[in-house]
Amino acid sequence: MSDSAPIPERVHDILTDRPTGFLSCHRADGHISATPVALMFDGQVVRVSTCKSRVKYKNLMRDPRVTLCVPHRNNPNRYVEIRGRAEICDDTGNAFIDSIARAYLDLDRYTFDRRGETRVVVTIIAEQVSAPKILFSENPPNRADR
Amino acid sequence: MSDSAPIPERVHDILTDRPTGFLSCHRADGHISATPVALMFDGQVVRVSTCKSRVKYKNLMRDPRVTLCVPHRNNPNRYVEIRGRAEICDDTGNAFIDSIARAYLDLDRYTFDRRGETRVVVTIIAEQVSAPKILFSENPPNRADR
Repeated sequence: MSDSAPIPERVHDILTDRPTGFLSCHRADGHISATPVALMFDGQVVRVSTCKSRVKYKNLMRDPRVTLCVPHRNNPNRYVEIRGRAEICDDTGNAFIDSIARAYLDLDRYTFDRRGETRVVVTIIAEQVSAPKILFSENPPNRADR
Repeated sequence: MSDSAPIPERVHDILTDRPTGFLSCHRADGHISATPVALMFDGQVVRVSTCKSRVKYKNLMRDPRVTLCVPHRNNPNRYVEIRGRAEICDDTGNAFIDSIARAYLDLDRYTFDRRGETRVVVTIIAEQVSAPKILFSENPPNRADR
């Protein structure tokens, strides 16, 4: 992972608070695929889980370019965008998807896959990281009833 | 807009509840750009606002292929993914950005652009719409303390 670009500390809280990220990759038909994902951040790189049966896996195997946009759980005006490439490896013993189940679902094991599914770990090697400070990022003039 | 693919009624609530969408498009360097956006849905097509000074505008002018992933405001397991192309026109009198300000900020006018910014309306002509029913979409086994 030594070649992954650093992710600024000021957005680490976004990545460690069980966020939903939006993972974009290239489809075979030329369109972009964009889908919500759970993710884990170890302080250096972000990882997500998928299965070998999924379109997402096939897309990333064919073209590893990937972008992950992660908004703050309670404030979409704060976000981090990570552009890079996916490195995919087996999720041995389902250890990684189980760690997601612990973090997101408070369950020891993830038991919801169909029989025969093979889990993989997608490590996102960051090449470009954007974490802009944007208008209203902290104090949006929201509706009072929001 | 007659060639925009229909968006299933079962996800119209997602699109009309002041959601944050995640708009993906192609950057000149080959990476995908993915950023949060406010959006308006008129029952047929989704529109977002941007400025001519923004990278997003330049990206979409160069390559109109665009994907918008919109999660439910309070349940990211429910979402709609719209893949298509962007049609861009001037936001005459800033009418469109002002409508976003009314919907999202409860303000009559959007007055936060720098002087000289030119607002445009990005209409997303849907070619493919994905609104999967996914695991836990309605009753996630969430943490009690969530």
